Amino acid sequence: MKLALIGVGLIGGSLAAALRAAGAADAVVGFDSDASALQAGRQAGILTDTANSAADAARGADLVVIATPVGAMRATFAEIAPALARDAIVTDVGSTKASVLADARATLGRSFTRFVPAHPIAGGERPGVQHADGALFRDRHLITTPVADTDAVVLARVEALWRVAGAHVQRMSADEHDRVFAAVSHLPHVLAFALVDMIARSPRADACLALAGAGFRDFTRIAASSPRMWRDICIANRVALSAELHGYRAQLEQLQKAIDAGDGDALQACFEAAAAARRTVDPTGK
Amino acid sequence: MKLALIGVGLIGGSLAAALRAAGAADAVVGFDSDASALQAGRQAGILTDTANSAADAARGADLVVIATPVGAMRATFAEIAPALARDAIVTDVGSTKASVLADARATLGRSFTRFVPAHPIAGGERPGVQHADGALFRDRHLITTPVADTDAVVLARVEALWRVAGAHVQRMSADEHDRVFAAVSHLPHVLAFALVDMIARSPRADACLALAGAGFRDFTRIAASSPRMWRDICIANRVALSAELHGYRAQLEQLQKAIDAGDGDALQACFEAAAAARRTVDPTGK
Repeated sequence: MKLALIGVGLIGGSLAAALRAAGAADAVVGFDSDASALQAGRQAGILTDTANSAADAARGADLVVIATPVGAMRATFAEIAPALARDAIVTDVGSTKASVLADARATLGRSFTRFVPAHPIAGGERPGVQHADGALFRDRHLITTPVADTDAVVLARVEALWRVAGAHVQRMSADEHDRVFAAVSHLPHVLAFALVDMIARSPRADACLALAGAGFRDFTRIAASSPRMWRDICIANRVALSAELHGYRAQLEQLQKAIDAGDGDALQACFEAAAAARRTVDPTGK
Repeated sequence: MKLALIGVGLIGGSLAAALRAAGAADAVVGFDSDASALQAGRQAGILTDTANSAADAARGADLVVIATPVGAMRATFAEIAPALARDAIVTDVGSTKASVLADARATLGRSFTRFVPAHPIAGGERPGVQHADGALFRDRHLITTPVADTDAVVLARVEALWRVAGAHVQRMSADEHDRVFAAVSHLPHVLAFALVDMIARSPRADACLALAGAGFRDFTRIAASSPRMWRDICIANRVALSAELHGYRAQLEQLQKAIDAGDGDALQACFEAAAAARRTVDPTGK
């Protein structure tokens, strides 16, 4: 199988590495608007060839994986559509799904039924194809959000490839996906960026950054993610994210009232509920 | 040296372990309102003796370490004051300093000049003396917040003991300490508890908790901290924490406007500033 990877970074590179290691892909042609990513993909042994454009990469490919920031997907779909083979399969790895589906529907033409929207719930702290790892998706969730006209055979094929990479595949609607990830991923990233930015601009920034404790370090780790990627995600999923942020701000308003009133019971009730839910997420307590 | 440990948990237990390992303390008598903590302290080999009250533990001790939640410190100081030897040194490990200093000044009487307010910037994910570790403070910050009438010899003695435990000692005013830690520790904990609590109460709680990605996991790790301890910290440092929370809510209001307006540039400016500050905190990019 010939795989075209458009957007050569950690996620797409790791998928290509996993599929090559398993013998599911023998050729991987890459395209990225950043030439250094192509070079790094070659050096990492992940790309067997490079192309000068997304359309060139897609031409003749059996499987086209779009792994650009979600804000670039519409233009990418539009560019590759005329170059796609009749039986080519197209999929993506974007963190939002309703916007990507709308972009694909508007631009892929007859290939839209052979497009499988997918989102692997995995990542690494270090971006870039040089940190790609064929084991990145092992025992991680992979979500597909097919629509009524998604070709069932194509869908099953893409899901099977993700299983080859070690992922647990789950289907849901794009809207449900976007609401869940607005809450557990997009909002947390916005909150972390906002906190680190606020502290960096404060008159005590130097002391704060030097004395950052464990709590703040967890926030800064989140805020290490790519600003460009998160800009795109926030804009693409802005309706669901806006609703979550509204709800969170109402929650903070209540906590501000409790703090200002010295109402320890109200604070403790919130903290206890969170600690209980936390045990659900990670029953080992790690 | 005979050490009295009042409040037998991870932090106090780790300090006692470090001082015993270094030969700086030969006897450690513990008191905790939770009898199981005393038993665990004995089993961990950290306590050489246990007492039936804080006053009993403090009687005859050379150094009294108060490691209770900060909300319990005033009553503890008041109880031990009459039992303290004339040359006994008292110190604490509380996360807030102005409230602890006010409590000590109001209750310790003539021993107040021999009280050294201290805060080790260290912790573990698992609370309890059974997870105590004599190496916990190695290369971590230890902050003292002495006042004008703090005995200089006593202050130097306590700081020397923390150096024995491997910590880097730094002095600052209690107010400065409380403002810095409101920003880098207390606010992040409130934000994490608030997010996990909100998600746990949502109609999509099960899907959200099952699909929690890396960002949310960092939040839940913070929210694994003791609700009782954080209630006390938030109340004790409520003036500084309230100011930080007000500032943060204003920051979120701006981001909400940007998201609702689809203003990707405003979002990216905030995200870029955070990513740049993050590199200051952890230049290795880890």
